[in-house]
Formats: sequence, C-alpha cells, structure tokens
Amino acid sequence: MMQRTVFRRAALLAQQAAVESSLPTKNMIMMLRLDRCMSSVSIPPPACMLRPLEAPFRYLFGPGPSNVPPRVLAAGGRPIIGHLHPEMYEIMNDIKKGIQYAFQTENNMTISMSGSGHAAMECAVFNTVEPGESVLVAINGIWGERVAEIAERIGAKVHTMVKPPGGYFTNEEIEQAMAKHKPVLFFLTHGESSAGLCHPVDGIGDVCRKHNCLFLVDTVASLGAAPIFMDKQNIDILYTGSQKALNAPPGTAPISFNERACHKMFNRKTKPVSYLFDMTHLSNYWGCDGQPARIYHHTGPVSGFFALRESLAILAETGLEESWRHHKEVAAHLYKGLEDLGLKLFIKDKDLRLPSVTTFAIPDGYNWREMLTYIMKHHQMEMTGGLGPSVGLVIRVGLMGYNCKKTNADLALAALEDALKHCKKSKA
Amino acid sequence: MMQRTVFRRAALLAQQAAVESSLPTKNMIMMLRLDRCMSSVSIPPPACMLRPLEAPFRYLFGPGPSNVPPRVLAAGGRPIIGHLHPEMYEIMNDIKKGIQYAFQTENNMTISMSGSGHAAMECAVFNTVEPGESVLVAINGIWGERVAEIAERIGAKVHTMVKPPGGYFTNEEIEQAMAKHKPVLFFLTHGESSAGLCHPVDGIGDVCRKHNCLFLVDTVASLGAAPIFMDKQNIDILYTGSQKALNAPPGTAPISFNERACHKMFNRKTKPVSYLFDMTHLSNYWGCDGQPARIYHHTGPVSGFFALRESLAILAETGLEESWRHHKEVAAHLYKGLEDLGLKLFIKDKDLRLPSVTTFAIPDGYNWREMLTYIMKHHQMEMTGGLGPSVGLVIRVGLMGYNCKKTNADLALAALEDALKHCKKSKA
Repeated sequence: MMQRTVFRRAALLAQQAAVESSLPTKNMIMMLRLDRCMSSVSIPPPACMLRPLEAPFRYLFGPGPSNVPPRVLAAGGRPIIGHLHPEMYEIMNDIKKGIQYAFQTENNMTISMSGSGHAAMECAVFNTVEPGESVLVAINGIWGERVAEIAERIGAKVHTMVKPPGGYFTNEEIEQAMAKHKPVLFFLTHGESSAGLCHPVDGIGDVCRKHNCLFLVDTVASLGAAPIFMDKQNIDILYTGSQKALNAPPGTAPISFNERACHKMFNRKTKPVSYLFDMTHLSNYWGCDGQPARIYHHTGPVSGFFALRESLAILAETGLEESWRHHKEVAAHLYKGLEDLGLKLFIKDKDLRLPSVTTFAIPDGYNWREMLTYIMKHHQMEMTGGLGPSVGLVIRVGLMGYNCKKTNADLALAALEDALKHCKKSKA
Repeated sequence: MMQRTVFRRAALLAQQAAVESSLPTKNMIMMLRLDRCMSSVSIPPPACMLRPLEAPFRYLFGPGPSNVPPRVLAAGGRPIIGHLHPEMYEIMNDIKKGIQYAFQTENNMTISMSGSGHAAMECAVFNTVEPGESVLVAINGIWGERVAEIAERIGAKVHTMVKPPGGYFTNEEIEQAMAKHKPVLFFLTHGESSAGLCHPVDGIGDVCRKHNCLFLVDTVASLGAAPIFMDKQNIDILYTGSQKALNAPPGTAPISFNERACHKMFNRKTKPVSYLFDMTHLSNYWGCDGQPARIYHHTGPVSGFFALRESLAILAETGLEESWRHHKEVAAHLYKGLEDLGLKLFIKDKDLRLPSVTTFAIPDGYNWREMLTYIMKHHQMEMTGGLGPSVGLVIRVGLMGYNCKKTNADLALAALEDALKHCKKSKA
C-alpha cells in the first residue's frame, strides 16, 4: 500500500524528474524491495498520463463518425458482462434482428463484425473470393478503390469500371463488364460518401444472378438515411458501419450474407486468409450455424455491441421510412441553404444525392483547408474536404441520425456563411 | 413528426401485431404517403427492440474480459470526437507512451490495433511473414495453435513445438528447433491463459538474434500482471489485449515492433494479405512513420481508445512494479485458499504460475460444467473451464487489475467452497 501511494499522480512528475536525473530515489529503493524475479523498469511512467483525458465538444458534421446520442453513449458506458454469457448471446440475437430490419432482410447469416466498416469489407471479400477468381469493382470514389486493393492482395483477378467522383454506372454498363470479365463478385458502393452520391441499385441484383455473380453492396454511409432493401433488391452481401446514420461509436460493422453468398463461401477449396474474419467461425460466434454450442473464437467488443444494440433500437423505434423521409427533408433544407449562399452542389441530379452526406464544389478562389480550419476554430464544427479521388473537388457536410435536424443544418450554413466572409479569397 | 410519434416504443408491438395480421394499418397508410422512390418495407421493426438493453452485474472472475473500473467506463462513455481530429492524435500519442511504459520499450513503432488480441496476432504474422517463409510456433495451449493456423493460411511453412497444457520449453529446445527449421519468426505465449502458465522469456530473444529470427511474444493475459521487458529481453514484436489486467473493455490491442521487426516488415516483396492490418498504413495512422500528414486509413474505435488511454493511465499511476507485486500477492492468497479447500493447483512450480489467471485441476468426481453453472447462478460470478487443449483439465479463476483484491479472492473461494458442498459428486 505504501508503494501505491508513492506512485500516485501527484508524485509521478517528481518521480520521473528524479529518474531522468539518475539519482537514487524512492523509486529505486522500492525496486530493491521487489522479489528477485522482477528486474527493475527502465522506462518511467509517461508524464502525459498525469493529464486527465480531454476531448472537447465538437459538432461532428463531417462524413462520420457522427455525434453519438446520450442514450447510446450510456449503453456503451455500462458495466460489461462476459462476451460468452447467455445474456450477451441474447443481446447479439437482438442486434441480429435489428440489422435484419435495417437491411430489410430475412437472412439468417446476419452478424456484426468486431471492427470498422473496413473489417466488413475485408470479411466480405476474404470469404467469397478465392485466389485466381475474377472480381469486378465499380470505382467512382474511394470505396471501390479500397475493395479493388483488398481483392488484389488475396490474389483475385481484379477488373475495374471507373468513373470520376460523382459518376454512376448504368445497369447496361455493368452487364457488359460482367459478361466480359465473368466475375464471381461485383462490388458497388450505395452511399459513396467521398463524392456524396447515392447510387441506384434496382435491377443490378438481377443482372448479377443472370451472370452467376454475387452482388456486394457497401452501405456504410447510407444505411438508415436512404432506402435499401437487401432481399427485394437481390443483394447477396450487404454491410454498413456503426458510426454514420446509426450513430453508435465506430468499432462495429453489421454485415449480412444470403443463401447464394453462403453457398459460395462455405463451399470453397481454400481457407480465407484471415482466421479472425473467417465466417465459418464468426457464424458460430453469432449462433447462425445451427450448432448447439458456441465455441470461443475471439473476444467481441462488449461495450461496442451494447452501443450498437441501442442505436439499432433507436432506428427500430423511429422506423426506417420515417428515418429516410427525415434525412431527405433535412438534406433538402441544407441544399436550399447552400444554394442561397451561392454554393454549387456537386451532384447535380437531386435523386442521386446521398441524404446523409452533402457535397458542394469548393467555391472559386477559396482555399478549402483554410475554410475548414476556420469553421473548426470558430464554430467547433467539423466539415471535411474530399477523400481519395474527390480531394480538392468538394467540401462535405454530414447530417446523420441524431445530427439530422434542420437546426443543425442552419448551424452548418451559418458557419459556412461566416467562413465565406472571413476567409480571404485568393487572387488567383 | 406525426410519423415519429406513431413509431414510438409503446406503439411498436401493436404495429407489429397489425403487420403480422396483414390488415391495413396506420403503418401502411403512412407508407403510401412516402415519396415514390421509397418502396415499402416488408420486414417490420423487431419486437425485441422494445425491451431496453439489460446486462446483469457479474463478477468477471474468468480469464477476461475482467470488470471494468468506473473511471474507464466513464472514459469510454464520453462524447466522441472525430478519429482524425488533432485532439484524437494527442490521445493516440498518449496511448503510445502508455504502451511503451507497459511494454518497457522505446520502440517508435508502437500502436493499438482497432480490434481484439486476435487482430494484433494477425497483424504481427501478416506483416512479418511472406508466403513460403518458415515460422516456428511453440504450442502449449490454445494461443500457439491459433498462431500456427494464422501463419498456415497465409502460406507460411509452419513448424510447431508441442507440449501438453502447462508444459514449457527450455531455451535449448527452442534453439535446436530454430537451428533445424530456420524460421523468420518464432512465436511464444508469455501468459498461456488456457493453462495458467507464465512462460520464462529470458535469453530466448538472444537465441532468436543468433539465428536471425524475429521473436514474437503474446502477453494478452499477462501484461500488467507479470514482468515483461520488451527491450531488455530482446523481444522483437509484443502485443496484448485491453480486457485483461488493463481492465478496458475488449476491442483494442496494443502492439509494438522494434527496429529488426520494422526492417523485415518494411522490406518485403509482397503486400500483406490484409489492407486493414497493413502496418504501412497503420504506422501512418498512428504517426509513427515520420510523415507530416496522416492519411485516412480506417475509422478507429474512438470510445475504445478513450477507455484504453484511461486504463493505461491507471497502470502508469499504480506503477508496473507495484502492479506486478500486487498480482503476485493476491494470487498467492488465492493459491493458499484453493489448497485449503483441498484443490490441486494445475501448475506445480509457483514461479511458472500466471498471476492473473489461476488454474486448478477439476476435483475428482465433480462435473466442472455443473460447478461453474452453480457458481454463476448462486454467486453471479464467472469462473471458466479450460480452453482448447485444456478443456476438461482445469477450472480457471482470473483476478486481474481492478478485480485483483484479496477480498475478491475470498469471494471466489467462498463460491467454490459452496459449489463443492452443493454440486453432487458423481458415483464414477
């Protein structure tokens, strides 16, 4: 108990100074008292740990993470239980049902990854593609680029269809590429948050079936904000993230596989490269494989699952249609305000705009980094520039889930107006 | 706003019943009012989401996750900021320093994975081993088995040294195997939580250097509870988990690479199979690559990092030596109590026992599952059976970090005494 006292915060800085000056100190005397098997530490406790954790309040009006509602924060801050307790399985079962509702699917193989949207992206590709197989990726922003890179790393033959940011693909273009490359998997981003595009999905699933190809869709930025119907739209694999319209902290990622996808991934010749993302094990962990016992695979993020369940409960209470309608209405309010400021929306066609993340062209003569820095400094508000291929093209304003309110749109518009007034226009 | 009201919790069950009976309902009428582009949902909101989240209080006296201290829970439940905000980088820098202290290393390449200990395990193997290279794995419990499986999946030539649970390897045995198999990587578990063994580490790093092999050590179950000195012990790659003696919720996993490991992983011919776990990107995300800008890679678990920072701060305040001493003292108290109950400790040699997780042989004639169920039911206390090769051999009691108190050891002993009294001995 004596030792514990010596190490308290108040004494830590002094102690570290002493260690640094290499003089005999209480610390060193204490070390001599330790059991023989314990050598002395040579790296002292870091002084930065004397400072308490500080995180300022921020309006997170970028493309996510979005501000987390108090009840979701409270759920994530509850005392944890074991990841293999029956009550935890019950919570995971609830999450599964909540995802089925959010995805509009009856797929049994519906789980949450213990990781971000990228974990779901890798899980989808790792499990459904074997080395040497052909994959077709639609690239019109950063997410397609990522999937192409992931598929290449595992030895797939990757074929890409490329459009500039904000561009989209017709069903005819997709079918032509599919007929040519005969892929086992076709990837499309529903909510391309780097460009602010919400890609049409109707009919593509049918094209994929016709060509015996799995249809993989990324809804990280769109789920809960724009309509998606996994079963009706014949989407074979769908995933999302927790930190966008769902408003949970980042760190979990719902994903669902239909029967076609399960058939492909559970009849492969080689094991997926990742043990952690192997759906053979994850399906058991989530009780989707019909086995009576769940065998330890990895330790799931218990607090993250608590928060995810709460965020899915909010979506179930609100109702999907109401959530879609509300995002569309607030986005329309934002569009009008941006245009009133003389700003030009990046996606011309209203029906192709992503309701959760709005993009506008960087106003002529302004430095976008300077504008964003000004808004962060004077309004404690995050907006962001482009990402990947859209860098230098757009500024992005995200109003999702809890943040999706006309009053927040007005706050964002006021901050932009202020930045346009105070950030110097360059002479170029 | 009308619609929102209709979807509230109180109305949800009634609504679902109505959907199920297929009669026209308020819900259906609302759908007709929605914009044309939004088709109607066919999967109703799940009734389970009407129930609030419930998680009972539990004494988590298994091998982890362990109970999380209130101040760590509070940190994890704070409003989040963006994962790329300067304040978040500061928090990540603090985490890096906290890990350097906990690992006793000055390695610059020190980060936390956005995932569990298994993510760190895969990250270590994925980045340092290329297909066709030889890997040597010491297996004396489940963790070596896991690493062997991971290395096999990426096409390494895997050689194993196997001992029964609780067995350990002499430096001579390791050197012989190393000379024979010429591995690029040797894996050893410091804290084998499935058997309760704390493996000696001194001298193995030197053997590895002599044979031009990287030394990878798993301290998921031991970090903070038993001495480890990454730099002094010439450990090239070290990782741990957040949910053991560090007492944060599961979902983050500190890992560190020294110069030798960095040289190997940044001079490879092939890219690692995982984009998400590629240290080229992760080192940039954590500001370890000397580049001025951090480029978006994935969205880190902001709340998880808040909690991890707080747990590392507690360790820095307590002091490593005090934490090691305290775990040893409480474990000794538990050993005596178990022996007083007539139970036999699984690891005979006191110096080889893992202070965080104590194993004892299943008492003759008892059904271990029945005992554990009884203890959970009557004492709200988790203890666990074996894992992997130790299933059916041992019962495990974990007292780590926040839970590491003599009073908790006494609670565990009282529960065990009660179970021994009330669980029927079989006649076999």
